[in-house]
Amino acid sequence: MYIRDISHYIPSQRVTNQYFADLNGLTNEWIVERTGISERRKAGAEENTATMALEAVKALEKQVDFPLQQVDLIVGASYTPYDTIVTLAHKTQHYLNATNAAVVYISSACSSFLNAMEIVEGYMAMGKSKNALVVLSEHNTAYHNEHDHKAGHLWGDGASALLVTKDKPTTPSLTVKEIFTRGAAHVGRGLEGVTLRPLHGGIEMPYGKDVFLNACSYMASATRDIIERNNYTLDDLSYLVPHQANHRITKNVAENLKLSPEKAISNVQYLGNTGCAGAAIGISEHWHEFKNEDKIVVTVFGGGYSYGAMLLVKE
Amino acid sequence: MYIRDISHYIPSQRVTNQYFADLNGLTNEWIVERTGISERRKAGAEENTATMALEAVKALEKQVDFPLQQVDLIVGASYTPYDTIVTLAHKTQHYLNATNAAVVYISSACSSFLNAMEIVEGYMAMGKSKNALVVLSEHNTAYHNEHDHKAGHLWGDGASALLVTKDKPTTPSLTVKEIFTRGAAHVGRGLEGVTLRPLHGGIEMPYGKDVFLNACSYMASATRDIIERNNYTLDDLSYLVPHQANHRITKNVAENLKLSPEKAISNVQYLGNTGCAGAAIGISEHWHEFKNEDKIVVTVFGGGYSYGAMLLVKE
Repeated sequence: MYIRDISHYIPSQRVTNQYFADLNGLTNEWIVERTGISERRKAGAEENTATMALEAVKALEKQVDFPLQQVDLIVGASYTPYDTIVTLAHKTQHYLNATNAAVVYISSACSSFLNAMEIVEGYMAMGKSKNALVVLSEHNTAYHNEHDHKAGHLWGDGASALLVTKDKPTTPSLTVKEIFTRGAAHVGRGLEGVTLRPLHGGIEMPYGKDVFLNACSYMASATRDIIERNNYTLDDLSYLVPHQANHRITKNVAENLKLSPEKAISNVQYLGNTGCAGAAIGISEHWHEFKNEDKIVVTVFGGGYSYGAMLLVKE
Repeated sequence: MYIRDISHYIPSQRVTNQYFADLNGLTNEWIVERTGISERRKAGAEENTATMALEAVKALEKQVDFPLQQVDLIVGASYTPYDTIVTLAHKTQHYLNATNAAVVYISSACSSFLNAMEIVEGYMAMGKSKNALVVLSEHNTAYHNEHDHKAGHLWGDGASALLVTKDKPTTPSLTVKEIFTRGAAHVGRGLEGVTLRPLHGGIEMPYGKDVFLNACSYMASATRDIIERNNYTLDDLSYLVPHQANHRITKNVAENLKLSPEKAISNVQYLGNTGCAGAAIGISEHWHEFKNEDKIVVTVFGGGYSYGAMLLVKE
């Protein structure tokens, strides 16, 4: 299957580190040293997970030469829901009037981008989908505790939308060579490393070090494994797009894999951790830089825990 | 693929109609006439969506001659999450120590049972899963407003777990002949009929009549369609298992299809609306009554809206 096109939306309001300096006494230097994050975006008062998802869909609609109304599958993803019944996937179906689409909403936390892609892969394998929309959106600032000294400054809001097709598009696209996902709830502090209990306080990350260490380890090994299974070497890799949790994690994974730093796509410095949307936003931002034959690995690690990797080739 | 076995869990605390008579001035007769519901179950103070899911998994573990640790896919479903990051699917993976499983959590509201089954079908079509666990759980009483005169008395809590296999089990099982799901966000008051905004008041159902009418219509037509596509007639149908929203809806669908009332499996009278778990609990309750060659249609309709049907044959 193929990623025919991708878009993203980020809200306009910027929250700089100065905000957290004033609020929590954390200095810009302290935050940058530990996370690489200088600023993040925050959804406006009238925005939510679903409105941001729709903005990404509208952006995709403008840029792609395909009537999105004809998609036959919509997979939405978020761990920061506005509505768990009328999900962002349903809002998307309604907006597009995509009357012939199966619609499902998922969460496997920050890994959901790849879980969503793998679900699409399954529908295409069954012959139940030819053109699918994946819509990822996180409204972290609705659920985070900005007074939390450990993690309050990490989170940003944003969304992304992808058109995925079974048939090869006539325009340049990314071929999906393999998707691999796994749960890792049995690993380390999987059950408590990052939590979001909507009725009990929102996002908490009491075991950041465990998350950090496992994210570094699992994203590196998942990348190495998918490259080797597809008979490439790490030297063949043009870009690595890791989950955008922390720039130190991204740098650690790149160093572990002996990739030159500029191959690791990163937006966490100016967007913060945008959850399951972060890596997809990264692909969207760099879409026009990818050259023919480029090999790109997306790798993710999320709370719960979950992880995975996807190998893409520009063709 | 095959449903090899199924289990369910319902919490012990009963809430009779007298509770809502005292609270909201609704009489038992009024509630029964409109919904068929006499009582529902409520999770205890120490219970939540994930603990109920695990109770269903533990019940399945006891009754099935297969080490659930070996499942390679866990699909959890709920619209009433305890934790949207450490989901009930992750809790299940951790409990089973199912170290080789892909793990994802979904919601398409009360339709999620069939969305989960269809996702499993996709993984099996790709050759990525041979033994999958579907875990459905709803903690409606955590999110409902019991003072809501329109809908406060509808909701109950419960969970179900299914072992789904690619290869035919040696024990009697249900063959999954077809699964069909569709979003219906474009239909009627799809975007506002039933909502659950975790940060804005929980479950609301301001347009119950629209939900009622569309549930009756879509569950009847989805049943008729799946029967005909598989070259059966409605006379061949042994059991209908509709989403357990309201006994009047179940009776309406059965009448529309000219099915004798006893063919329509119903537990809403004593469990209330247990969301995506309700129809699966119904299958679990009647598992040992199904006879060889029985044809069973599960049909669902959920907020958002979404709907679908699944045809099963006992073999």
